[in-house]
Amino acid sequence: MAKTYKPEFYPIILAGGRGTRFWPLSRKTFAKQLLPLNSAQSMIQETVARLLPMAPGENFWIITNGDLRPNILRQLKSLPRKQIVAEPVGRNTAPAIGLAAFILHRQNPNAVLGLFPSDQVIQNQKQFRKDLKAGIALAAAGENIVVMGVKPTRPETGYGYIELGSISQGEVMRVRRFCEKPEKDVAAQFLAAGNFYWNSGMFLWSARTLVNALQQYLPATAVLLKKISATWGTRNFDSTLRKLYPKCEDKSVDYAILEPRSAAGEESSNIFCIPADWGWNDLGSWAAHFEHRIAQGKHQDNVISADSTFLLEAHRNYFHAPGKFIAAVGVEGLVVVDTGDALLITTIDRSQDVGKIVKYLDQQKRLKLV
Amino acid sequence: MAKTYKPEFYPIILAGGRGTRFWPLSRKTFAKQLLPLNSAQSMIQETVARLLPMAPGENFWIITNGDLRPNILRQLKSLPRKQIVAEPVGRNTAPAIGLAAFILHRQNPNAVLGLFPSDQVIQNQKQFRKDLKAGIALAAAGENIVVMGVKPTRPETGYGYIELGSISQGEVMRVRRFCEKPEKDVAAQFLAAGNFYWNSGMFLWSARTLVNALQQYLPATAVLLKKISATWGTRNFDSTLRKLYPKCEDKSVDYAILEPRSAAGEESSNIFCIPADWGWNDLGSWAAHFEHRIAQGKHQDNVISADSTFLLEAHRNYFHAPGKFIAAVGVEGLVVVDTGDALLITTIDRSQDVGKIVKYLDQQKRLKLV
Repeated sequence: MAKTYKPEFYPIILAGGRGTRFWPLSRKTFAKQLLPLNSAQSMIQETVARLLPMAPGENFWIITNGDLRPNILRQLKSLPRKQIVAEPVGRNTAPAIGLAAFILHRQNPNAVLGLFPSDQVIQNQKQFRKDLKAGIALAAAGENIVVMGVKPTRPETGYGYIELGSISQGEVMRVRRFCEKPEKDVAAQFLAAGNFYWNSGMFLWSARTLVNALQQYLPATAVLLKKISATWGTRNFDSTLRKLYPKCEDKSVDYAILEPRSAAGEESSNIFCIPADWGWNDLGSWAAHFEHRIAQGKHQDNVISADSTFLLEAHRNYFHAPGKFIAAVGVEGLVVVDTGDALLITTIDRSQDVGKIVKYLDQQKRLKLV
Repeated sequence: MAKTYKPEFYPIILAGGRGTRFWPLSRKTFAKQLLPLNSAQSMIQETVARLLPMAPGENFWIITNGDLRPNILRQLKSLPRKQIVAEPVGRNTAPAIGLAAFILHRQNPNAVLGLFPSDQVIQNQKQFRKDLKAGIALAAAGENIVVMGVKPTRPETGYGYIELGSISQGEVMRVRRFCEKPEKDVAAQFLAAGNFYWNSGMFLWSARTLVNALQQYLPATAVLLKKISATWGTRNFDSTLRKLYPKCEDKSVDYAILEPRSAAGEESSNIFCIPADWGWNDLGSWAAHFEHRIAQGKHQDNVISADSTFLLEAHRNYFHAPGKFIAAVGVEGLVVVDTGDALLITTIDRSQDVGKIVKYLDQQKRLKLV
């Protein structure tokens, strides 16, 4: 028998991303979240493991796509298969979490749903769960929306920011506004200001709050999601999903709900931020992965996966060729990743351009390589 | 029936070297001479092919070692198996060519033997064979020794040099002296002087001349070689070779015979040089191989063996990963060579240090990798 939690908490893990910047390890059927970038477990396995103390396995939902679902099922055998849902087409975060919200709303409008990316590192898990617990309590009350904000450590232009307003209670802050990915100089201003946090993509709200918000801000999509949710548990679910889900609007939760709602002003929007300091890292590139591995202390100087090595004047390289002997002489700052069918050769400084390779392969219809 | 040639010419190809600077492609059982570095044929196949118009296959001898012999047999199926001889231990060039000389001397003292490395590129084969023909005629007369000298194009410190003396006849020159590998400044003087040529390692002499020279300069070794040669064609050959060959002196033809003989002075030593201009290249490293491929016009900018590629701001790299898709972004002057068990990552500038990797692997007794 499952333990009972009050309020009942449902982690909804979004796992439909491709993570092309980890090519050639990441593939359409084996994306970044399936890779063991932080430990022996994959990113999605770690995501589930750190949430399992907060909710029984039967409460977990994974929203992914048909390419990734088979490998996700293989990696997450303890979770309910039917709750590992493949979107027929990608429709961004609003319909993804909305579908779970409408289904769970029928069972328990007071259920608290947490939206979680599937490919992030969190080092201080104790603090993460403490913050999450506070957030769940806050989300269970009224129509509150809670977002986890990460204290910025650099003027990053790859993330959205949250501007914090006044203190609500304890360390919880009211959100003043959501800011899309800024230019470099604006990001520097945000960092200097001190009250801007990175949008981690983690949100908490009750099923009722989310269903109401969807009906208010995405009414057409809400109608479709409600229809789909009505077939949950029946043999018609799959066909209804395939038919109606593609008609949902392709919008993010941030853009569709949070930004317009925050426009009502920090006092009335009831959006709260829990400022997080958990050693968060989204490992956005080979460079970020390299720096993370060095910071972890698991490697010094070079970060290498290999059977064995010979290094002569080789520094700050990322080499991945498991099972092979790697010999490196007189090279610095390189990224070399070797798979059975592909070889990536670039530098740590240029690793953000790896996505361009996948774009090229997509254009060339080199299906086996993407 | 074999064609008859006058004088009868026997190519003796030395193929016992390891060529460690082509690791990880070159291995103890698959050395540089077995690699297709210049064309679809391996270096030793090319060596045989360019000599076959000069002598029938039955005249060829290959001196190699037990590690390499099986793969050499596989690559040179048309040559007589028994004349692909494995030295029980390496004893440098004097005993290697000496063994063939004593065996052939019993059959025909006037036979002309040519000593040839097995791993060099010669682009102008017509001129090569024209020069060789002149050299064979010269070597057949009296006690002459003929060396092929290569016009130097840079102050190379990796080769021995030949100082030329007076003109003998036509383009043939008398040799004044043999010079061992020089320091950089001496090499520059040689280049400037104009009468110094690279020692290509190619020599021509009659069986009689060579047997006489061995008896004069390496008398103890000559006795051993004579004993071994007496068992040629009998079932005792292998065991005699195994027993006596290791007792031969470990000396090069240059050091044991040519240098002392040239000390007699250019008029009486009867050593001649045919100055060669055939587009000769000994491909001594990945860098030399890279430059040669570019010079051949087979590649521009990058030299790549792969199934297919995506290159973005990648210049003057040498990449080898046949069958794979290679993606390179923002890298220059690299050497990356991928095999099933090893990955080499270095630069064109540092490729002369690749031998150090093999030295390390030898020390570590990583037998499968060397």
